[in-house]
Amino acid sequence: MLFGSLPKRFFLTSGYGEASTDLNAFDAALLKAGIGDTNLIKLSSILPPGAEQVEPYALPKGSLVPLAYGDRICSDPGATISAAVAVGIPVDPAAAGLIMECSRIGEPGPCEEAVRAMVREGMEEIRGARIKEIKCISATMIVRRVGAVFAAVVLCP
Amino acid sequence: MLFGSLPKRFFLTSGYGEASTDLNAFDAALLKAGIGDTNLIKLSSILPPGAEQVEPYALPKGSLVPLAYGDRICSDPGATISAAVAVGIPVDPAAAGLIMECSRIGEPGPCEEAVRAMVREGMEEIRGARIKEIKCISATMIVRRVGAVFAAVVLCP
Amino acid sequence: MLFGSLPKRFFLTSGYGEASTDLNAFDAALLKAGIGDTNLIKLSSILPPGAEQVEPYALPKGSLVPLAYGDRICSDPGATISAAVAVGIPVDPAAAGLIMECSRIGEPGPCEEAVRAMVREGMEEIRGARIKEIKCISATMIVRRVGAVFAAVVLCP
Repeated sequence: MLFGSLPKRFFLTSGYGEASTDLNAFDAALLKAGIGDTNLIKLSSILPPGAEQVEPYALPKGSLVPLAYGDRICSDPGATISAAVAVGIPVDPAAAGLIMECSRIGEPGPCEEAVRAMVREGMEEIRGARIKEIKCISATMIVRRVGAVFAAVVLCP
Repeated sequence: MLFGSLPKRFFLTSGYGEASTDLNAFDAALLKAGIGDTNLIKLSSILPPGAEQVEPYALPKGSLVPLAYGDRICSDPGATISAAVAVGIPVDPAAAGLIMECSRIGEPGPCEEAVRAMVREGMEEIRGARIKEIKCISATMIVRRVGAVFAAVVLCP
Repeated sequence: MLFGSLPKRFFLTSGYGEASTDLNAFDAALLKAGIGDTNLIKLSSILPPGAEQVEPYALPKGSLVPLAYGDRICSDPGATISAAVAVGIPVDPAAAGLIMECSRIGEPGPCEEAVRAMVREGMEEIRGARIKEIKCISATMIVRRVGAVFAAVVLCP
């Protein structure tokens, strides 16, 4: 796909996890999101034209998975943390979609509103594109030891 | 290219953008740089031996684009921000080139001087290689709301 | 490999370097580690099932190299800095292995203990998997000007 074929499909997923270190909590959140045994490659976040949404499915263990995501790791017991990601699907099937991510200390609602507003600004105001639909997913948790939340748009072959 | 063929070409590009959030400003800068509807994969920054410079061209929307870049996002109205990237082309066509990036609050001149000096240090002092030429590009702007500058060496098939 | 074949082999490597800037020091550490003229793509860190360890070898200059790594860059002369990475090999050959990284100001011993403990937590406690072996590598140095340490698990075709 790097210089090859474009991603043709995508899915949204999210998760949260608890552990004793930042990396272990992040890893636990990925497992909860169903993509924990893959190698994530973080992208700057564009949905290829015409990509179709599918249900999350099991990716081959160890595979390199391109995706856009928001995450937050926190080690303050009692804190609420949230992450959200949104993808704007354009009316024009030849246009690219835009993915935006956000994370914060606090409830997921403001995160979801923020990513939706960012997609609208990027597509309508900056690109002058019409939006068919905005899809959004989020994760939230109350931290006990070290917590991680994660929300992603995964690009698939 | 990952375990496949090497990038054979490269181009330099830069851009700047304004918006109401960090991610939207970064996205606007990418659009201005002509690579806004692609998925960036940030590399540690080596130019493959023999890669040829080409004029910037339109990459397929949504494609995964390997590149090295410097960027700066700033939300202080009135601030000047700059980013620069330089690539050293070695005399030896079988040797790798080195890409260095820099960004700062301030004028672009010092950024350009910094990346050129970093390329010279990396190639001449550290690798003991002779430099045929250093190519450099930068971007600068005065921030109004949230601004982003971006300068990149894009690797192409 | 992105949507293609999985990495079949891996090797551990580490290095340290000195220079006058952060990026040059990091570049010098990569050269010392034997992967200095390649383009690193940082992964979230899973070892594909059945991947075999090999001795470090010269990767093609300029190639895109997927890897998991820990690094630390420091410009405090006299400071000791360390980085370590560990990979857990599961008893079950169909299971994925887990890679964890750590870096710190200080001796390498605590870094190595930390990454080993993180691999055990991620595999035994979180995945409920049995570990056959944990492989670990680290780098350490006393900074003179600007120093960088680097420890990695490199995935290969």
